Amino acid sequence: MELHSITLRAMLMRMRHPFTTSLGTEWDKYFILVEARDKEGRSGWGESVASREPYYNEETVSTNWSIMKEFLIPLIWAHKISHPQEIGAIFRHIRRNNMAKAALDGALWDLYAKRQGLSLSRLLGGEKKEIEVGISIGIQETAEKMVEQVEKYVEEGYRRIKVKIQPGDDIPVVAAIRRRFPDIRLMVDANSAYTLADLDHLAQLDQFNLMMIEQPLAHDDIIDHATFQKRVKTPICLDESIHSREDARKAIELGSCKIINIKIGRVGGLGESKAIHDLCQEKGIPVWCGGMCESGIGRGHNVAITTLSGFTLPGDTAASSRYWVQDLIDPEVMVEKGLITVPQAPGIGYDPVARRIDECTLYSEAFRP
Amino acid sequence: MELHSITLRAMLMRMRHPFTTSLGTEWDKYFILVEARDKEGRSGWGESVASREPYYNEETVSTNWSIMKEFLIPLIWAHKISHPQEIGAIFRHIRRNNMAKAALDGALWDLYAKRQGLSLSRLLGGEKKEIEVGISIGIQETAEKMVEQVEKYVEEGYRRIKVKIQPGDDIPVVAAIRRRFPDIRLMVDANSAYTLADLDHLAQLDQFNLMMIEQPLAHDDIIDHATFQKRVKTPICLDESIHSREDARKAIELGSCKIINIKIGRVGGLGESKAIHDLCQEKGIPVWCGGMCESGIGRGHNVAITTLSGFTLPGDTAASSRYWVQDLIDPEVMVEKGLITVPQAPGIGYDPVARRIDECTLYSEAFRP
Amino acid sequence: MELHSITLRAMLMRMRHPFTTSLGTEWDKYFILVEARDKEGRSGWGESVASREPYYNEETVSTNWSIMKEFLIPLIWAHKISHPQEIGAIFRHIRRNNMAKAALDGALWDLYAKRQGLSLSRLLGGEKKEIEVGISIGIQETAEKMVEQVEKYVEEGYRRIKVKIQPGDDIPVVAAIRRRFPDIRLMVDANSAYTLADLDHLAQLDQFNLMMIEQPLAHDDIIDHATFQKRVKTPICLDESIHSREDARKAIELGSCKIINIKIGRVGGLGESKAIHDLCQEKGIPVWCGGMCESGIGRGHNVAITTLSGFTLPGDTAASSRYWVQDLIDPEVMVEKGLITVPQAPGIGYDPVARRIDECTLYSEAFRP
Amino acid sequence: MELHSITLRAMLMRMRHPFTTSLGTEWDKYFILVEARDKEGRSGWGESVASREPYYNEETVSTNWSIMKEFLIPLIWAHKISHPQEIGAIFRHIRRNNMAKAALDGALWDLYAKRQGLSLSRLLGGEKKEIEVGISIGIQETAEKMVEQVEKYVEEGYRRIKVKIQPGDDIPVVAAIRRRFPDIRLMVDANSAYTLADLDHLAQLDQFNLMMIEQPLAHDDIIDHATFQKRVKTPICLDESIHSREDARKAIELGSCKIINIKIGRVGGLGESKAIHDLCQEKGIPVWCGGMCESGIGRGHNVAITTLSGFTLPGDTAASSRYWVQDLIDPEVMVEKGLITVPQAPGIGYDPVARRIDECTLYSEAFRP
Repeated sequence: MELHSITLRAMLMRMRHPFTTSLGTEWDKYFILVEARDKEGRSGWGESVASREPYYNEETVSTNWSIMKEFLIPLIWAHKISHPQEIGAIFRHIRRNNMAKAALDGALWDLYAKRQGLSLSRLLGGEKKEIEVGISIGIQETAEKMVEQVEKYVEEGYRRIKVKIQPGDDIPVVAAIRRRFPDIRLMVDANSAYTLADLDHLAQLDQFNLMMIEQPLAHDDIIDHATFQKRVKTPICLDESIHSREDARKAIELGSCKIINIKIGRVGGLGESKAIHDLCQEKGIPVWCGGMCESGIGRGHNVAITTLSGFTLPGDTAASSRYWVQDLIDPEVMVEKGLITVPQAPGIGYDPVARRIDECTLYSEAFRP
Repeated sequence: MELHSITLRAMLMRMRHPFTTSLGTEWDKYFILVEARDKEGRSGWGESVASREPYYNEETVSTNWSIMKEFLIPLIWAHKISHPQEIGAIFRHIRRNNMAKAALDGALWDLYAKRQGLSLSRLLGGEKKEIEVGISIGIQETAEKMVEQVEKYVEEGYRRIKVKIQPGDDIPVVAAIRRRFPDIRLMVDANSAYTLADLDHLAQLDQFNLMMIEQPLAHDDIIDHATFQKRVKTPICLDESIHSREDARKAIELGSCKIINIKIGRVGGLGESKAIHDLCQEKGIPVWCGGMCESGIGRGHNVAITTLSGFTLPGDTAASSRYWVQDLIDPEVMVEKGLITVPQAPGIGYDPVARRIDECTLYSEAFRP
Repeated sequence: MELHSITLRAMLMRMRHPFTTSLGTEWDKYFILVEARDKEGRSGWGESVASREPYYNEETVSTNWSIMKEFLIPLIWAHKISHPQEIGAIFRHIRRNNMAKAALDGALWDLYAKRQGLSLSRLLGGEKKEIEVGISIGIQETAEKMVEQVEKYVEEGYRRIKVKIQPGDDIPVVAAIRRRFPDIRLMVDANSAYTLADLDHLAQLDQFNLMMIEQPLAHDDIIDHATFQKRVKTPICLDESIHSREDARKAIELGSCKIINIKIGRVGGLGESKAIHDLCQEKGIPVWCGGMCESGIGRGHNVAITTLSGFTLPGDTAASSRYWVQDLIDPEVMVEKGLITVPQAPGIGYDPVARRIDECTLYSEAFRP
Repeated sequence: MELHSITLRAMLMRMRHPFTTSLGTEWDKYFILVEARDKEGRSGWGESVASREPYYNEETVSTNWSIMKEFLIPLIWAHKISHPQEIGAIFRHIRRNNMAKAALDGALWDLYAKRQGLSLSRLLGGEKKEIEVGISIGIQETAEKMVEQVEKYVEEGYRRIKVKIQPGDDIPVVAAIRRRFPDIRLMVDANSAYTLADLDHLAQLDQFNLMMIEQPLAHDDIIDHATFQKRVKTPICLDESIHSREDARKAIELGSCKIINIKIGRVGGLGESKAIHDLCQEKGIPVWCGGMCESGIGRGHNVAITTLSGFTLPGDTAASSRYWVQDLIDPEVMVEKGLITVPQAPGIGYDPVARRIDECTLYSEAFRP
């Protein structure tokens, strides 16, 4: 793979619904898009899921830009890459900064697949022709409103309902949903909002036949989750605290979880994602693919990895139109009755629209070998 | 004209022939491209002729970027512009930085013409359907080699031959050309290489029936050129020292020149170019359009201004292929028998190729109102 | 504490001995110095131990600068800080980036101590008047050379000898040292160079009566170290994998180590360092203070925290002159017979030399509330 | 002169009186300070008079930084400079950007003078022990208020009163002053506010026995001023339009002025200032030194050049305390009865105060050969 250039673009992309936090309301998502061009004029695309602020992990748009420019891109120039599987080893001595690594890794996998004339799914060894998709619902003002939301998405055919919980908004909300929908596939996501002191309280969730409780304890914890899993019957799913195949191995050995959510950005790329998938399959741990509000580019990568056979649980990859006024790809990612049809064209299989990408580019920088 | 955004791009564009100076050899030209988008999705394009180094005037790619970002673009946001003719007044209190002003001005003229469905030539009041083009030949190692070069371009049909001169490479070179071609339209360009002390020496040029001597004295001089013009019969043409209609008026009043070379970038835009043209026409001073090694975008602007009736002398706007391996526009600027056919499509009339522009973009930054 | 400004300086400081890696030889250390000024004109100083490259953890000089500028410093402006102990909570929702946090935290502790007229040691609750210091010796070409080095430092009076080991340079080297010095306080530092597959091999170290084996396994591991510690009698000391009091608690509970190395930068500041110290003291786990090749500013902070009574093992804080041609402080940190006398002046107790700091400043940026 | 480094500092310095324009009110001046250090640890200081905006000439703090960093400082590293007189030639092929050039030039003259143990005044060939100082008064709301202001400064002993005029605030104001003070040395400064159409109107000034009318016409004009000077008896003084000895020569030859205001920054440094001074002295044209609201560093340079014998008219260099809450130097520039005592210590003779400079530094960057 002889490269012509790698271009980073800082994107500002209008969301369908504004995102409100205590710090204000955001109408646009700010993130980095990566384009790797080969000498023949083909382009592979990747996306960093790092956001403006270091609230999910240590990474931000600024730190990603710096790490890619100063370290990762020079490492790519310094190596002859014959297969994207090699990238993990090339980046290994750069510690963490996984989202930055995954963005470059994703662009190179997409480019390589295009050069081979293969869909990314197929290149990764995926066999599914369609993938199941669930929906994720944020905290609602009342339990009634949550039930209404659930109702809406159940009708739309989503294959799994995930609801966010936090202290004060947990047991009664789940109870209300279960009363109305005794049989749907239901799970809760706690996003690290609890501590071991809440163990007895959270154990009440066992009565609701949930698919799983996602990341109840600290974002960087594997050890306390083992204590937690011993106490509850509902499977724990780890998200934030799994950064590598090694983390997954230890979590499984320690009994910290029974399910793992694989986010490509969080683990540093497709190679590591596949390695975690393979390990989990061997150990009988189901996996599914989480979402970070990606544009169509990142969504395409999520669809491709989800086609691996170990992804037995519905993922978080929703339709483009749920998040974006207009996506960067054509056609957009579409969900029908909870299913996404896997594209068969080379690479991620969704075509980036140059004009649209251009409109959302806030600033860019190109690097050449 | 309601604008959606203005995007600056630093371009690195491969030249057909490398440019060698005492500081090294450059294979690529580095310059700024401006895109102004309106809310309906149309784009107008402009180009700064400032280069990496402040060797022609005080401006560089870096200073242009800063002046556009910090001052000129905010001024555009702060004004409601109904016609690009207004831009000169809006920018007036920003002193000099004419190339930066002209790049934005050019993008807004192109956009406005497209919105009106008019060619830029027609919008400016131009009537020519084709324009005459001359060629400019650099210093050659020997007079013989220069004669060979001239021969080649005369055969290609160029309507005027310009040769660069400098102390030590002047009278004998011109004499050799005249011996071989007694009748062609011939001129010399001295690029400020002489001083008043060389007056008697340069007066020898009077014997060769030259169209003009371009900018023999200092780059910022109008006054000494009047002394010079009084002593020689050959018309002096001023280039570097004319930055505005006011400069032109004074040069004409003082008798500093009999011809003026109008470069859009040097005078701050199309409005000022037209004002100089109008004044010169009134005063009986022929004008022509100089070149600064523009990409197709800037070349398109040069073609448009040259269609005004006062541009009675062939300009320096050569074919795209003479300078570029591949231009940014489609079709490229083409010269046949010394003539360029003026495009009739809206705006500059040459279509920018998104993919090609993208490939040459080194870095970019977008600004929104 | 009403602040006037916070100034970041990127420092390039000449080392006494160049630092050679596979990537080249560095003669200067590149790091960030922080100065927090109050309205009365007093200055508190802190230092980030992040280096140019993300090889120790995810942080670099560039990412630290960005995180401080975009997030941490605005958080300081947004809060009324009455005691530096509050900083940990203020920074909590910014994930990781501990070295950036610690640099600001350190400057504010120093400033607060100066405002109170107290030495930083005393403010932290330290009581020691002098602290014990060990030495750290890098990999040597042969076991003989290592013994020579150890000999030299034993003679100089250092209170503990630490030698770096790696696969291929371990058991025989330690054996050679022990033959020559059967009774000195000796430890090894593996810097994550081994895996669980090396357990049996490393267990041979048990025969040498070592104080500890530092961080034998992965930089982000706590769990495998528990397996390791169960197998060997020599105490394991954790370094890279402890980022917080919570990490320390889990490591102790899991039996992953019997000693902890506290680096202020790695754990995010003095408040967290003290919290880890307190926990370890309660649990009977000795701690000591590691080094990251700090300038005198950071060295001063290390001296202060080491005066807490739980720091029962000699630390890595050597004399200024061992690392620097000229330090930033006056007087420099001096070691006599393995002891550093704790300064009693307010704050860190070593005076920053404005002229010297200025000479080493590569670039700076000041921020005001 | 072997240099160790050159440091640029962007300064934000509190003014005694805010500066109000149509764009808002500024409490701080933003400018660049230059420090050139030699290997022996001596420092020479210079100051750029470019301001945040390109309203006086084409230069700004941003463009100056870029031109110094990318072009001028590399030129200094590329040449062996034995005397600062050589700098003009070294910078010659960089067009304009005179304030950037003068800032570096000033630092090197100051450093050289210190190395020689000479005051800058003496190094330049100045002989005065004290210099005469005038005052400059801005537009006032009414003629009465202007007379009050003049009264105040006459009492303070200033050696010359300069009042700003503009269309609508000219003849009656001057008339009112003259009625009250028939004999004081009085001049007006028009700062390019008029055109040739105002000639008859301005000719009325001839009745007031003014020392001079400063820059009545366009900022870049020499030619129209000749027409102007032919029509009025009062001497014209040129400011903005003189950038070099060549400009001065032409203005004198054309009869454009009878007095020249030398601003070191406007003409590119001390060498060119001296060359203009020498020419004017030869031609019988009095000169004086204008001001650009400099800090004490620039003020020191102004004092030094003013000691040359051709500076026969009082300059604009007022006391530090008139402009600054606290200056950067110790002692500050002081005016007594309209006189400044020329310092005799090496270099500019005023000591920069490190602590104070530090407090005002917004950002800095150091360059090494």
